[in-house]
Amino acid sequence: MTDSIDKIVSLCKRRGFVYPGSEIYGGLANSWDYGPLGAELKNNIKQLWWKKFVHGRDDVVGIDAALIMNPKVWEASGHVATFSDPLVECIKCHSRFRADQFNGTCEQCGGKKFSEAKQFNLMLKTFLGPVENSDSVVYFRPETAQAMFVDFKNVLDTSRKTIPFGIAQIGKAFRNEITPGNFIFRTREFEQMEIEYFIKKDTWQENFEHWRKEMLGWMEDVGIDLKHVHEIEIPAEDRAHYSKRTIDFEFDFPFGRKELYGLAYRTDFDLKNHENASGQNLKYREQGDGTSSGEEYWPHVIEPTWGVDRSLLAVLCSAYDDTDASRTVLKLNPKIAPYKVAVFPLMKNKPELVEAARKVYTGLKKEFVVAWDDRGNVGKRYYSQDEIGTPYCITVDFQTLEDETVTIRDRDTTTQERIKISELTNYLSNKIYR
Amino acid sequence: MTDSIDKIVSLCKRRGFVYPGSEIYGGLANSWDYGPLGAELKNNIKQLWWKKFVHGRDDVVGIDAALIMNPKVWEASGHVATFSDPLVECIKCHSRFRADQFNGTCEQCGGKKFSEAKQFNLMLKTFLGPVENSDSVVYFRPETAQAMFVDFKNVLDTSRKTIPFGIAQIGKAFRNEITPGNFIFRTREFEQMEIEYFIKKDTWQENFEHWRKEMLGWMEDVGIDLKHVHEIEIPAEDRAHYSKRTIDFEFDFPFGRKELYGLAYRTDFDLKNHENASGQNLKYREQGDGTSSGEEYWPHVIEPTWGVDRSLLAVLCSAYDDTDASRTVLKLNPKIAPYKVAVFPLMKNKPELVEAARKVYTGLKKEFVVAWDDRGNVGKRYYSQDEIGTPYCITVDFQTLEDETVTIRDRDTTTQERIKISELTNYLSNKIYR
Repeated sequence: MTDSIDKIVSLCKRRGFVYPGSEIYGGLANSWDYGPLGAELKNNIKQLWWKKFVHGRDDVVGIDAALIMNPKVWEASGHVATFSDPLVECIKCHSRFRADQFNGTCEQCGGKKFSEAKQFNLMLKTFLGPVENSDSVVYFRPETAQAMFVDFKNVLDTSRKTIPFGIAQIGKAFRNEITPGNFIFRTREFEQMEIEYFIKKDTWQENFEHWRKEMLGWMEDVGIDLKHVHEIEIPAEDRAHYSKRTIDFEFDFPFGRKELYGLAYRTDFDLKNHENASGQNLKYREQGDGTSSGEEYWPHVIEPTWGVDRSLLAVLCSAYDDTDASRTVLKLNPKIAPYKVAVFPLMKNKPELVEAARKVYTGLKKEFVVAWDDRGNVGKRYYSQDEIGTPYCITVDFQTLEDETVTIRDRDTTTQERIKISELTNYLSNKIYR
Repeated sequence: MTDSIDKIVSLCKRRGFVYPGSEIYGGLANSWDYGPLGAELKNNIKQLWWKKFVHGRDDVVGIDAALIMNPKVWEASGHVATFSDPLVECIKCHSRFRADQFNGTCEQCGGKKFSEAKQFNLMLKTFLGPVENSDSVVYFRPETAQAMFVDFKNVLDTSRKTIPFGIAQIGKAFRNEITPGNFIFRTREFEQMEIEYFIKKDTWQENFEHWRKEMLGWMEDVGIDLKHVHEIEIPAEDRAHYSKRTIDFEFDFPFGRKELYGLAYRTDFDLKNHENASGQNLKYREQGDGTSSGEEYWPHVIEPTWGVDRSLLAVLCSAYDDTDASRTVLKLNPKIAPYKVAVFPLMKNKPELVEAARKVYTGLKKEFVVAWDDRGNVGKRYYSQDEIGTPYCITVDFQTLEDETVTIRDRDTTTQERIKISELTNYLSNKIYR
């Protein structure tokens, strides 16, 4: 765990996890690009989540909906009317500021006179089709959630799931934040992992508790330090009007304790709302098989939400360890480490070592994502792999040429053992995936 | 292979591959949502691609860049000036139409008088920050490619790759097409898989040929019927001005022969251009190790591009087989099939069969994505799994209770064999992943 965001940002830039977006053009308003290692780490986090919550369960299916939905969706959800921040405008230079955060002086021109506060919608809008007018305005989704409600009936009809069941989605969402910041913590373009879990009303408490535990279990799986996670019970006056209970999971980021994930009981607000707005029947009908009544109702909803970028940042902060002055280690869960193993020839200028090492490398590459390093000495290569979280390093040396064994070195303990090449795949599979 | 798009669209809707986007609100301009099976199939295609071209190679690394880039990127690339279609406007009702496709009569109001043709930019624009004016206009990327050029130096510095090497990306892109259509073939929001492969100028022909073969190899891997793929050499007058050679791979879609993938030699146009526009040095320096000169130059670029949605559609068309009147089969490559295997109890109302089948199901679920079906009779379940491309079906029957064997049935041959439960995982792994 580190309390220095500078160390994280610096590591991310230096080793290719995260770069400033459009950097050669001076960047763009706190946007970020994931480099080779960041793209791997992010993919691994998303795949671990999908495996746990979609493939690993019988009661959740996934969808992948369009980012641009019919604007009526956002009218029905309330986003067009109320998803906004109050802004004041400088009378002189027309710059705008958050009414709840400004200090009475224009940061642009020093002016002191401002308009009344007006609501400023946070959805990114664009125009579809050849004409730019109010008829062609559409919005990039500000959350993944609504797609699960809009597609509810289609999913129900095609998957034939029965209550309780969930619809999961991973994807981008967009919010025109006035003050993005803190590295990848708050950006205008971000990625969510979200589940809408449909239940019978009178089971909401047990299902809420189930998902609370599932979220804690996820944090343990992915490698977020639970000692720095705080559950905040959101009081009624701060909850969305339709929510009967909400918990925020906050994490001790280097820049302060901030929201990481959320869990909300949304009642039957969403499906009821979309039924009223669309005129389509979005009720669920119990299967009348003699024991049940065949009654029709709007399912209630438990909604666990995870930010992908925030997950990655919390994982990096949790895994970062420079308490040993001689090295910096990312103690990533091997399941999500960008490389699972690195292979080195002891010396670069001995063709027989390089050849034997390439053979080991090529063999392992069929099963794992493998790094190759023949630069500098073995100590420097360990240092380099530790810093990006590679859990195992294999060195091919002269003994290898005699007895087909290699040394394998553990990232966290730094201990080494000698093992037969023919046993490597099993050894690593057991260490990484069990 | 099918020549009926209606059959594909119907199967997709009925079984949960693809639904019309925002359907309960009357849809939205040819947008589509991937349902549970479509999301799995799409993820599997993307992961197969990443595994082949990023993890499977030593000379390609991946990135995941922001969808919104600094607008200067699109000025430098030429998209702001020239990524446009010519439109005419009806004098009476202001509807606009493609100048090269309209017939002289307004489809909206029947008017016959039109403005001169004007260029209409195809990028989706939005406004970042609180003020909507020309300073805050940004564009959603119309292609994934430019990020690889803009991040070229960062990737080079952090990955330490040497020429030749490639940067790969999978992600969304957006084009305000005037006439989207043909199901998921042409949509305003779509997903690309793309590689920019950086080379020395004088090696372009061999590298072009290498990637041509890699693209054909990919089509074979993913299950696109090569008998229906056509390589079109694009003549000089139809190529982008900077391209010295371009091949389009066209596929016999049910609605006609249309572009599936593209392969272009882009010369050093892009890096040179971005260096001039940004003022940053985007040249590559040969490592001066005695044998090489340490010369500095803009690498040339070979660009293979794949559409994700088009891949999925071509795969579905290729795999669709209803020549046997008794069943419809999706002959998907098992690697990308949404479910790898389905497990059935012979009868639903025999608890001992259901219990034994659940045990098999739960065991396989640790390694594979598995379907469970206990509805109707076994014949109907085969029919149902064939239609979604599940390669293997396992039935637990009374003999299972005696000798711990099950029948396993092959989707393509419909042959069945008896096999021990303890051998299932190995059997399936070998069939699916080798």
